[in-house]
Amino acid sequence: MGLHDMGKLWTPAEFEAAIRAVGAQRYHDKHPFHRMLHGGKLSKGQVQAWALNRYCYQEAVPRKDAAFMSRVHDRELRREWIRRIHDHDGLGEEPGGIERWLVLTDGLGLSRDYVTSRRGALAGTKFAVEAYVRFVVEQPLVVAVASSLTELFAPSIHRERIAGMLENYDFIDDRVMAYFKRRLTQAPRDSEFALDYVKRSALTRAEQEQCVAAVEFKCDVLWAQLDALNHAYVMPGVIPPGAFRPGGGDD
Amino acid sequence: MGLHDMGKLWTPAEFEAAIRAVGAQRYHDKHPFHRMLHGGKLSKGQVQAWALNRYCYQEAVPRKDAAFMSRVHDRELRREWIRRIHDHDGLGEEPGGIERWLVLTDGLGLSRDYVTSRRGALAGTKFAVEAYVRFVVEQPLVVAVASSLTELFAPSIHRERIAGMLENYDFIDDRVMAYFKRRLTQAPRDSEFALDYVKRSALTRAEQEQCVAAVEFKCDVLWAQLDALNHAYVMPGVIPPGAFRPGGGDD
Repeated sequence: MGLHDMGKLWTPAEFEAAIRAVGAQRYHDKHPFHRMLHGGKLSKGQVQAWALNRYCYQEAVPRKDAAFMSRVHDRELRREWIRRIHDHDGLGEEPGGIERWLVLTDGLGLSRDYVTSRRGALAGTKFAVEAYVRFVVEQPLVVAVASSLTELFAPSIHRERIAGMLENYDFIDDRVMAYFKRRLTQAPRDSEFALDYVKRSALTRAEQEQCVAAVEFKCDVLWAQLDALNHAYVMPGVIPPGAFRPGGGDD
Repeated sequence: MGLHDMGKLWTPAEFEAAIRAVGAQRYHDKHPFHRMLHGGKLSKGQVQAWALNRYCYQEAVPRKDAAFMSRVHDRELRREWIRRIHDHDGLGEEPGGIERWLVLTDGLGLSRDYVTSRRGALAGTKFAVEAYVRFVVEQPLVVAVASSLTELFAPSIHRERIAGMLENYDFIDDRVMAYFKRRLTQAPRDSEFALDYVKRSALTRAEQEQCVAAVEFKCDVLWAQLDALNHAYVMPGVIPPGAFRPGGGDD
C-alpha cells in the first residue's frame, strides 16, 4: 500500500498490526551482527566496537526527546515525555540509562573519556543517530511520536541479548547488563503511551501511513548502525580512518 | 566596546559587571508599560491583555529549555538544566509555573482554553518568544546559556510587581500572585548556575562579548513584548485584527 494511496482509515487494530508488521520485517534483531553478538561469535574487540558506537545512540536519545519537546505546546504531553529524559539522563539520585551504558563500556575496558568523546565512533553511526534527532524536529508531531515505536519490539531483543551475552562471553557479567534489564520495564511503559497517542492522533489514512513509515525510518536508523559496525569490524572488516581499532589504544 | 574588538579577556568580575550593566540599561522593568502595571494605572482589560500575552512567553520557556538541551552532549549540564523544565511544567504532584500562571489568568476572568490557544495574543509577542526559542538552537552553547541571565534581574521586578499589583488592583489577590512568589527562589538558583557556567566557558573576549550581547538580545525579547502590548492596549491603543479585545468576548 503506497504512502499516497487514498485508502480508507485503518481501524485501530489494523493500524497497530501495520506498525507491528514493520518490526517483523525490519527490526535490527534480524541483522547478522546481532545474531553474532548474541550468539557469542564476536571477539571482545568487536563487542567493544559495538558498545562504543551504540553509546552514540544512547547519548542521542535524550537529545532527541528534548528536541521533540521543544515543539510541543501541550503541557500534558511534555510532562509525560520528560520521563524518557529522566530514564536516560537520570534524575537526582537515579543515575539513568546512559550511566548504566557506561558501566557496560567500563566493564569492557574502554575509558569513559574516549567513549563519551565519541571520537572512535563510526561516521555511519553518528549520521544515523543525528538523522533521528532531526526527524523528530522536522516531521509532524504524531509522526515523530511514531518513530519511537520500535520500543514495541525492544523487550524481546533485550531478553535475548541478556541471556545470550551472559552465557557466551566471559567478559560480560550481570552487573554490566543492568542497562538492558532496566529497559525491560521502561520500554513497554513508553511504547504503550506512544502507541495509544498515535492511534488517537493519526486521523487520516495518510497520517497512519506516515506513522508506519516513521517506524520503518527508525528501523533504518537502527539497522544502518549495525551495517556500519559489520562493515568496519566483521565483514569485510575495513575500519575507517580515525575509528576505534580493537587493541590499538584509545585513539 | 564593539563586538569585534580584539580586547583582552575580561576578568570574571569585569565580565559579570558587563552582564549586569545590561540589566541596568535594558531590562524591561524600565518599560513604561511595567511602570503602569505595577503602579495600578491599568484597567482590568489591560492587565488581562498583559497576562494572556505573557502566557505565550511562559509557555515558550520550557520549549526553549528543551531546544537547548537537544544540543547538549554533556549529561551533567542536561541534568542541571532539566530542573528549569520541571519548574515550568511541573513534575509529578508539583503543578509548575505555567499552571500557576493559569491561576492568574483564571483570577482575571479569562478562559483557559482561550489563553492556552494563544489565539488572542499579539503577533509581536509570538514572534519575540519564538525568536528566543530559535536563539538557543542557533547560537553557541555558552551564548545560549548567557541568554537566560536576565534572571539575574528578575527578583527585584517580581518583588515590585507582587507589592504593586496587590496594593493597586482589587481584582488581584495573594493566591493569583503565587507564580511570582515561587520565582523569587527559583530564578536566583538558576541564574547563579548560569552565571558560573558562562564565566567558566567563555574563554575569549569575543565569546564574553557575545554573551553580553545575548543578554541584550534577551532584554530585547522582553522589551518587544511590552512594546507590542503598549501599542495595542495603551498608547495609541491600536488592537490588531484577531487580537484580544478587552470586554469583547473570548474570540
